[in-house]
Amino acid sequence: MSNRNARLQPSKPTIERLSTYIKCLRAMKKEGILTASSADIAAATGVNAAQFRKDLSYFGEFGTPGRGYDVEQLQAHLANIMGLREKHRVLLVGAGNLGSALAGYPGFKERGFEIVAVFDNDPHKIGTKIGDLEVMDVDTLPKVNATLNADIGIVAVPAAAAQAVVDRLVAGGVKAILNFAPATPQVRSGIVVRNVDLTSELEVLSYYLQH
Amino acid sequence: MSNRNARLQPSKPTIERLSTYIKCLRAMKKEGILTASSADIAAATGVNAAQFRKDLSYFGEFGTPGRGYDVEQLQAHLANIMGLREKHRVLLVGAGNLGSALAGYPGFKERGFEIVAVFDNDPHKIGTKIGDLEVMDVDTLPKVNATLNADIGIVAVPAAAAQAVVDRLVAGGVKAILNFAPATPQVRSGIVVRNVDLTSELEVLSYYLQH
Repeated sequence: MSNRNARLQPSKPTIERLSTYIKCLRAMKKEGILTASSADIAAATGVNAAQFRKDLSYFGEFGTPGRGYDVEQLQAHLANIMGLREKHRVLLVGAGNLGSALAGYPGFKERGFEIVAVFDNDPHKIGTKIGDLEVMDVDTLPKVNATLNADIGIVAVPAAAAQAVVDRLVAGGVKAILNFAPATPQVRSGIVVRNVDLTSELEVLSYYLQH
Repeated sequence: MSNRNARLQPSKPTIERLSTYIKCLRAMKKEGILTASSADIAAATGVNAAQFRKDLSYFGEFGTPGRGYDVEQLQAHLANIMGLREKHRVLLVGAGNLGSALAGYPGFKERGFEIVAVFDNDPHKIGTKIGDLEVMDVDTLPKVNATLNADIGIVAVPAAAAQAVVDRLVAGGVKAILNFAPATPQVRSGIVVRNVDLTSELEVLSYYLQH
């Protein structure tokens, strides 16, 4: 297997696909599948086999020619690359409908992302509870996170408030931000932001409706 | 420009990237940019220029060699390919926190997706209002949609209820489904389901935290 990409920086789409592969391998493991070929993984994920092998090549050599991949071993290896072997603490800002939904989203904790604090700027929400967490004043975020040391923040506030919330998260030591606000907040280099675009998901469906 | 892919079926990732290109072109148009090279679009979207040109090649020939793409024309062309020139009616099932958040999500209507009805099975929610819409009994969905003729459904219910809701949507004539439940509902051929995986977004952030 070629290893010529091992020194290159993988692209963002490659990283997104790694998450897809991990999910696929996790499901295979659950079904008791021990080994899988790149064709098996391609069929299960919708990514073509050559792309899959190219994506892996950024990170070293995997699998045995003619025998395929050890499902458990590859999953563990990819989880390691993605930084998923340790748990992550997450701050959530925005205690409205979306924030409440995200606080209760079962997939996060299951896969190692624990929301450890919820913040809002609305006096009517501060002090109320979402699940087990009391909503705190967003002004206290940097101080609170000096103790909690969360490195990921989720932004679930209106577009107009997004930049201020992102600045507050960065001031609090957060290094990676998942933004649900329909805005593109700016951050200094060294901080990563992912803007979730739910409308884009509907646009993809629209394509399939007419083809 | 090569047109050798024009007869092949584009992959799902290609369709997802088309939505990204449209978004980028829309932003360029807003900024008054009239033409863009594939390198410009690559820089703005994080997709490499060769991939961009390959994605376009499935749909014909675009742009003028040496002059780049007419931003407005390419956006219109891609919107047409994606079926975005006409508005889409959308049914939402689930009037909990997530459903309420989605019903108020500003990006949907702006980009041509109008939620025209909300359903739930909880007697305490049926008859209440989310925005301008009265929550209806999910049992009435097929009958209600005989009039509304929505072709897209959004599933915002717990995992255990997802399959039943998807079956109801399909019975009501819906052809494309965006599923937020952490489940993978089965549908007959001819119906498209996209399962939104929010944890995957956090996994991508996790990668960048450690690299």
